Amino acid sequence: MAVVVRNTPRTDLAIVDQLGQYGVATIHEAQGRTGLCGPRLRPIYRPVRVAGNALTCEVAPGDNWSIHVAVELARPGDLLVVTPTSPCEDGYFGELLATSVIAHGVRGLVIDAGVRDVADLTRMGFPVWSRAVSARGTVKETPGDVQTPIVCAGAYVRPGDVVVADDDGVVVVPREQAAAVLERSRAREENEAAKRDLLSKGELGLDIYAMREKLAARGLRYVDEPGA
Amino acid sequence: MAVVVRNTPRTDLAIVDQLGQYGVATIHEAQGRTGLCGPRLRPIYRPVRVAGNALTCEVAPGDNWSIHVAVELARPGDLLVVTPTSPCEDGYFGELLATSVIAHGVRGLVIDAGVRDVADLTRMGFPVWSRAVSARGTVKETPGDVQTPIVCAGAYVRPGDVVVADDDGVVVVPREQAAAVLERSRAREENEAAKRDLLSKGELGLDIYAMREKLAARGLRYVDEPGA
Amino acid sequence: MAVVVRNTPRTDLAIVDQLGQYGVATIHEAQGRTGLCGPRLRPIYRPVRVAGNALTCEVAPGDNWSIHVAVELARPGDLLVVTPTSPCEDGYFGELLATSVIAHGVRGLVIDAGVRDVADLTRMGFPVWSRAVSARGTVKETPGDVQTPIVCAGAYVRPGDVVVADDDGVVVVPREQAAAVLERSRAREENEAAKRDLLSKGELGLDIYAMREKLAARGLRYVDEPGA
Amino acid sequence: MAVVVRNTPRTDLAIVDQLGQYGVATIHEAQGRTGLCGPRLRPIYRPVRVAGNALTCEVAPGDNWSIHVAVELARPGDLLVVTPTSPCEDGYFGELLATSVIAHGVRGLVIDAGVRDVADLTRMGFPVWSRAVSARGTVKETPGDVQTPIVCAGAYVRPGDVVVADDDGVVVVPREQAAAVLERSRAREENEAAKRDLLSKGELGLDIYAMREKLAARGLRYVDEPGA
Amino acid sequence: MAVVVRNTPRTDLAIVDQLGQYGVATIHEAQGRTGLCGPRLRPIYRPVRVAGNALTCEVAPGDNWSIHVAVELARPGDLLVVTPTSPCEDGYFGELLATSVIAHGVRGLVIDAGVRDVADLTRMGFPVWSRAVSARGTVKETPGDVQTPIVCAGAYVRPGDVVVADDDGVVVVPREQAAAVLERSRAREENEAAKRDLLSKGELGLDIYAMREKLAARGLRYVDEPGA
Amino acid sequence: MAVVVRNTPRTDLAIVDQLGQYGVATIHEAQGRTGLCGPRLRPIYRPVRVAGNALTCEVAPGDNWSIHVAVELARPGDLLVVTPTSPCEDGYFGELLATSVIAHGVRGLVIDAGVRDVADLTRMGFPVWSRAVSARGTVKETPGDVQTPIVCAGAYVRPGDVVVADDDGVVVVPREQAAAVLERSRAREENEAAKRDLLSKGELGLDIYAMREKLAARGLRYVDEPGA
Repeated sequence: MAVVVRNTPRTDLAIVDQLGQYGVATIHEAQGRTGLCGPRLRPIYRPVRVAGNALTCEVAPGDNWSIHVAVELARPGDLLVVTPTSPCEDGYFGELLATSVIAHGVRGLVIDAGVRDVADLTRMGFPVWSRAVSARGTVKETPGDVQTPIVCAGAYVRPGDVVVADDDGVVVVPREQAAAVLERSRAREENEAAKRDLLSKGELGLDIYAMREKLAARGLRYVDEPGA
Repeated sequence: MAVVVRNTPRTDLAIVDQLGQYGVATIHEAQGRTGLCGPRLRPIYRPVRVAGNALTCEVAPGDNWSIHVAVELARPGDLLVVTPTSPCEDGYFGELLATSVIAHGVRGLVIDAGVRDVADLTRMGFPVWSRAVSARGTVKETPGDVQTPIVCAGAYVRPGDVVVADDDGVVVVPREQAAAVLERSRAREENEAAKRDLLSKGELGLDIYAMREKLAARGLRYVDEPGA
Repeated sequence: MAVVVRNTPRTDLAIVDQLGQYGVATIHEAQGRTGLCGPRLRPIYRPVRVAGNALTCEVAPGDNWSIHVAVELARPGDLLVVTPTSPCEDGYFGELLATSVIAHGVRGLVIDAGVRDVADLTRMGFPVWSRAVSARGTVKETPGDVQTPIVCAGAYVRPGDVVVADDDGVVVVPREQAAAVLERSRAREENEAAKRDLLSKGELGLDIYAMREKLAARGLRYVDEPGA
Repeated sequence: MAVVVRNTPRTDLAIVDQLGQYGVATIHEAQGRTGLCGPRLRPIYRPVRVAGNALTCEVAPGDNWSIHVAVELARPGDLLVVTPTSPCEDGYFGELLATSVIAHGVRGLVIDAGVRDVADLTRMGFPVWSRAVSARGTVKETPGDVQTPIVCAGAYVRPGDVVVADDDGVVVVPREQAAAVLERSRAREENEAAKRDLLSKGELGLDIYAMREKLAARGLRYVDEPGA
Repeated sequence: MAVVVRNTPRTDLAIVDQLGQYGVATIHEAQGRTGLCGPRLRPIYRPVRVAGNALTCEVAPGDNWSIHVAVELARPGDLLVVTPTSPCEDGYFGELLATSVIAHGVRGLVIDAGVRDVADLTRMGFPVWSRAVSARGTVKETPGDVQTPIVCAGAYVRPGDVVVADDDGVVVVPREQAAAVLERSRAREENEAAKRDLLSKGELGLDIYAMREKLAARGLRYVDEPGA
Repeated sequence: MAVVVRNTPRTDLAIVDQLGQYGVATIHEAQGRTGLCGPRLRPIYRPVRVAGNALTCEVAPGDNWSIHVAVELARPGDLLVVTPTSPCEDGYFGELLATSVIAHGVRGLVIDAGVRDVADLTRMGFPVWSRAVSARGTVKETPGDVQTPIVCAGAYVRPGDVVVADDDGVVVVPREQAAAVLERSRAREENEAAKRDLLSKGELGLDIYAMREKLAARGLRYVDEPGA
């Protein structure tokens, strides 16, 4: 009794693409340290960065049938986000499926499971963040939900939320907050540029961030090595 | 009371080398989704692919003595397959052993344990699939069996079975089935080439594989987003 | 009630730099198979090698405050070694902190936790060995000890001990033993060069190391495959 | 910038208590195999079963401050559900906090982190499902959200959803579906009683569920052992 | 294309039952430290011990269909051994299946996956060794092989091999060796009884096993604490 | 080149025994949240509590030889603490060794590896904290250090330090601080008794610990559910 939801909302690609100019760490901070997928998701090649609208897909363990269903709903600028109903490291996705989703404008894959054909996917420049690499294929016996809210590596993702992924991992930005998070990411980056300049000259974070007093208040003590 | 078995059978290198032209995922499918080592075995560099006759070797935890014994039994075209009697991530194999086995025609190493000197091994182009990288060396106190059937990362391997390994992992082909699996791998690849062509033009797997009716029979329902 | 210890001893950089010419596996053997951090610490890029004086820093889970404190104590040639009081994979260290420590002569980072901005750190050529990569940032609420003895990934490290790290992992050399370990590393390497030459010509370790008799004494038996 | 939401809805305790008469496995099936927390959450003693209204609480790693905040919002029949913003096994909760929440009618704790004082908690009969047992205490420096939707061990939980937990694990029932799931749990249990009777007499599932034809259609073949 | 093999051989129950009087550790030693399943398999209750003829069953991830097939082949004295084709912690087996296999004389379950209804199974006294406890149910879409050789938690098991399991884990005795292993287990136990007597009187293993000379030969040195 | 150190200092048993009246969590807090072994060490039975002088022992992976050496150095009131040089879950210790150490007054075992014969050990009331239970035995080929400082599950332990272990885990108290930590544990317990009384009457930690103002200062906001 799986469900496929059509006509789900998406985030304006202009906003998606601008968010994609910021790193995952920056965006994660800019939205209050929320929305991060767990660090078990790693890119199959580096360096890499991509942003897209979440095209969500739930799969049974060892069964990739609903990925085929999801392809039909793909729109240019989508990023496929796949999660199994129970933990599985099988190779759900390979070069043939990549060929298929690329033809429909999908920009990459985030999957809390395994992928295969990673040499081909790397050569094709199709970015993937996965929990494992495994040649073990899957069956097509049990359909799962497509374009419904899912939990992927601990993050809650709804169709059309913005997903940004790079060497550091994967972050999900709720579509209602995408514009605001973009703004805060920009501000954060500018602020960091000023700090970087001071730090590269050797100034201390202790002074730039005025931490000394607060540290003393928390009981930090300086002592000298006994024999020094 | 360890045993070394001499004169074990091997698979014809002509077949081994042809199998080595196919990916691990393809061969795994071609032999009915069997024979795969678990995904904890990863290559130390990528891209990479190799095929060889299994030269099997069991080792005690933290003890690589029987690898030295195995070298004497190596024949050109062999691939060394090593498994510890209990899980261990120590560095059983490094640049000196690689120098030794290369001199005897060994093509690579599959080990459900750790390796070291990976910078050297990478520079030498000696392919290794391992569970870990660790500088921790091993002792030489307890010999293990050489050229007997073993379980390596969950796969059953006998001396002379064909082992193929690439970016996706490691697969074992029983020597009696090597020729048949080669044939089926070829057929599979040809079949996929036709599919790839259709998919790259945007045709859907749903249509190519005639899945729609079967999906409906399994209860898949399409609905529209409430607010759409 | 955290403590910062000033004026801790350091190892002579001449010795540190010479130790840095040997691999971690060699040094680990040369000091009697001790001092290795666990293999969960992996470099963010490869190939890589660095040696430095340990600048130790303990952090609370999800809190990188004391790293800022540590920067002030950094001296050229130091290698920052960070350990959390309980296991944590958050991204404690990124491009801004790297900019800061580089300005103070720090040569790299060993951390039994996560790092972020790994694309930037790789581009900057700042070597890092970590347990994870994670975009999840940290707070600054709880200071930890700086320049006190710590346990990092299972190894005991004191300020000013020599830390050498490469593709194989991380090893700690107690500062009192640094000169002696350097000497033994040299001797070991020379000994290995002779062995390498013999092995590359196809001579067997069984003969070079005179193992055959000892193996027989431990009960190793040679048999022929029944059907052979 | 943490938030505490007051006056969140709860599920009628009459329904909660009736759901608590069914096992987690039954309820999980009755709501279409959804809502299960991952199996890393285990009870500190067995046998055990409890049901309650979710009182949700997010905590920083190594910091249990917001649990103290949550206590004030507790109502009789609540079950405290705690999740850290990044994985942590520290002991967030012990005998003192248990004494406090029991005084406010809280029935148990589900936490994707560690607990301590488990000998006391067991003696007090306060049920806990946790990821770990750890004596390592936590600080009180960083507040987290209370009574907002959270992801706990992979399950999405909102305040006032019904949480049922037993020896098999933890399941979350969305409050809007609680009555319907109760009904389906009842029906399922009755259906199983009939099956149990047949099975205990030795009838085969193959026949009771009429599987033989479907298995043959999927290609299942029966053969005799060659030598038999 | 799954296969069910009928009329597979079994080990004489008289031998099975006598083997069941020895602990897993004893039997493991008695057969040369082979045949052990990995320690991830743990009993759902303790203390417990059982021995039986292996009734082997391979299952797809998240799919328990072939367990239903296996029931028909069960004979009194069998012990069901189940392994998934890729790692899975779902609850493949619960109280209904236990009711069914008990009716056919099955003595217990060894499964490298999850089980559920563990409160019921414990109450029924049906022994289970599993990798996990999970309420997550399975589907019935993909049959797997029954009564073929399998690898379970790293051990190679054939139908009719003897499986002995207790608080320490699970060991597999090849049926051809069952009688000999029984004999050696007996001898081992008698030998240990004599040792136990000496040890309980305070005699040292160093003396009983005459280890002192061998230890000195391996370089063991005794020193006194400097300040003592 | 292993070393056995004789005549190492021990902590006065009067202090050890009084420390053993406090829980691990209490002692851990009383010494500033240090000295805890990681939560992977779990007791083989519960409830349990023991305190003793650390008798330290390093072992090679899969080799328990030095435990036999350690027995000779045991004194009444000792607690054996064993750590492998690389991670290993083999069963290093069973009923025979327990018989031996009990005869020498050893009170229990803490081991960052596996144990076996746990049914016997439980029956004998010999407390063990281990990383795993495994029937896999060990060899006696490579001696390790006895009564030297070691790292056990992340904690630094010296001979004669006090080790306290209970249902919550294991904590190490440096012998120089044992008397002071005992004093602070007492004070802490008295302080908690007063708190417990207030909490059991329903008073809030928020008020008892005067947290409200500090929480507001850290930005905690209270809001009402929108629809409430």
